[in-house]
Amino acid sequence: MQKIIDPWGSELVEDYVKIVKDFGLEKFNTKLFPNPSRLMRRHTVFAGRDLDIIAKCIKDKKPFYVLTGIMPSADKIHFGNKMVIEQVKYFQEHGAKTYVLVADLEAAATRGITLEEAQKRAMEFHIPAWIALGLDPKKTTFYFQSENKDVMHLAYKYAKKITLNEFRAIYGVADPSRIFAALTQAGDILYPQLKERMPGIVPVGIDQDPHLRLTRDIVRRTKAEKFFLPAGIYHKFTPSLSGKMKMSKSHPQSCVELPEDFSSVKKKIMRAVTGGRETLELHRKLGAEVEKCMVFELLKTHLVEDDKELEKIYKAYKSGKMSSGEIKQIACEKMELFLTTFTKDLKKAQKDVKKLKFIKFG
Amino acid sequence: MQKIIDPWGSELVEDYVKIVKDFGLEKFNTKLFPNPSRLMRRHTVFAGRDLDIIAKCIKDKKPFYVLTGIMPSADKIHFGNKMVIEQVKYFQEHGAKTYVLVADLEAAATRGITLEEAQKRAMEFHIPAWIALGLDPKKTTFYFQSENKDVMHLAYKYAKKITLNEFRAIYGVADPSRIFAALTQAGDILYPQLKERMPGIVPVGIDQDPHLRLTRDIVRRTKAEKFFLPAGIYHKFTPSLSGKMKMSKSHPQSCVELPEDFSSVKKKIMRAVTGGRETLELHRKLGAEVEKCMVFELLKTHLVEDDKELEKIYKAYKSGKMSSGEIKQIACEKMELFLTTFTKDLKKAQKDVKKLKFIKFG
Repeated sequence: MQKIIDPWGSELVEDYVKIVKDFGLEKFNTKLFPNPSRLMRRHTVFAGRDLDIIAKCIKDKKPFYVLTGIMPSADKIHFGNKMVIEQVKYFQEHGAKTYVLVADLEAAATRGITLEEAQKRAMEFHIPAWIALGLDPKKTTFYFQSENKDVMHLAYKYAKKITLNEFRAIYGVADPSRIFAALTQAGDILYPQLKERMPGIVPVGIDQDPHLRLTRDIVRRTKAEKFFLPAGIYHKFTPSLSGKMKMSKSHPQSCVELPEDFSSVKKKIMRAVTGGRETLELHRKLGAEVEKCMVFELLKTHLVEDDKELEKIYKAYKSGKMSSGEIKQIACEKMELFLTTFTKDLKKAQKDVKKLKFIKFG
Repeated sequence: MQKIIDPWGSELVEDYVKIVKDFGLEKFNTKLFPNPSRLMRRHTVFAGRDLDIIAKCIKDKKPFYVLTGIMPSADKIHFGNKMVIEQVKYFQEHGAKTYVLVADLEAAATRGITLEEAQKRAMEFHIPAWIALGLDPKKTTFYFQSENKDVMHLAYKYAKKITLNEFRAIYGVADPSRIFAALTQAGDILYPQLKERMPGIVPVGIDQDPHLRLTRDIVRRTKAEKFFLPAGIYHKFTPSLSGKMKMSKSHPQSCVELPEDFSSVKKKIMRAVTGGRETLELHRKLGAEVEKCMVFELLKTHLVEDDKELEKIYKAYKSGKMSSGEIKQIACEKMELFLTTFTKDLKKAQKDVKKLKFIKFG
């Protein structure tokens, strides 16, 4: 039986190599793109689909787009979400036309809030947070899913292009609500090509790959439309600080939220699973089990930009010279700086949000 | 196993009594509504849901609405479609706020035409034809499904209110395309209540009852919205002139189209199945088998307004005094008059169509 990755689930996917094989993904080549980002260099980005096409667009300065969505149901995001934004930022900085949609329809349908609430949350928090995390609002086109009739028309049309069994093969389940959500996402993903046919890339956690596969199947079945197959680029999940699952707001004690007071995050870091040995003596002797350390994971994926600095920490920790207490100390310092900057940038972005370039629909 | 009525099929439903029982419909009481229409008096209208509520609205002059949709895929309609329009006309004349939507999304998805083509056909033909058949454009609100974001939002939201198995129980089948079409129809049916909660009635052939049942189930599951359950009123199909199926454009030789040249319709009437006996001698002796006569059916359902006139024809034919040739002759005369009037009214309506009250969406 084919393995099903459920975009609505929260399990942690452990065996990334197997996933690459099972789903026919391309293993990510860190040399493919110019000036690879921290996430690319550190193998947090691990796979893709049609990445060559995007690399060629960057090289030849040909038009392409990057697209992602905001789910404005909660009033916070977390460190896991941050990676998507950083991926979008990378492609934006390398020439991509950037589309960010607010999935207010999906939020309203699945989270029991009104469209107005969803839109308000997006305007007051999510979009400013994304800007604070590096998205250039001047180079980004925003829209609300519920305002975009073209997307809804595409979704309706695409319903004809997929059978229930095919849907179930991709998603593991099939119910009316998920069918609507998934086909609307397919509409979102292809929407930028309605006006200009061009390659596009969607950075996602691997759990979102079903949406990419569905959309690519639809493109193959609507050849007359001459859409490009959307490329996908996949990053590993940020594990929770307990290392047991992917970081999720459902488990706040092992999740770094944004925004969150440093004092609160500090407590979580202090309680995080580390690579430390049972005693300091053993630690000095055997060195840390770095691959089990959720604090090092934080540094590697999120908090240390410079490769040499990270390597230095790694070596000291791995050799036992650096203790778990010390690595927590480093993480806390970096985290405090990050949170201070984020809070300041968020406030600024919240003031500027009204100037954004939203698509106006007739 | 529960009988499934398929709104996408073309079979002729023979046992109306059984249908009333199986689907828990109310048998239509010809005295329920004031000044019952020809279709009501002649038992072409045979069942309903929540008709008392609508009757009370008419009696008390309380607001209610009547709603129906135009499928603008072909460039003709036929005598079977005509009944829906007459039903809408009846309720419009008895105080209903009238909504007519153009199902351009459904036409585009299922008939392989563009939204623009669908809208063009509706404007150039269907809407004028409906006006020619008695709809008062000044008292009617028209909209295109694809323009109505509220309807699309309702559809998306309602997807959460129905499971796949429930959908299958109602429709017999469940595939993404039908799920989209059906939930969008539910959105259409309830749309008039978004601004004003009021009872509404949807006149349909019995094959469309699944849409009513789905919509009523959704209303029951969204009690906080305080929508009224939409009432339904059902008419029998107009059988084809061969008597073998419901009238359908797929079988043009037994279908009276609108518009159609009288000379062409005349040929079809001349070839229609009648109640005549094998020889004129036998006919005079035994009388006609009126219940098998598709020409009498045409007179009863469509062409003779006056009950006494119809009864006179019935008696003469039943007793054998009137031959099948004579009844065809009567039908041809009536048909010619009808088609002449329709053609004239259609031309006038085609000129006036630009003045219509279409909902403008922001």
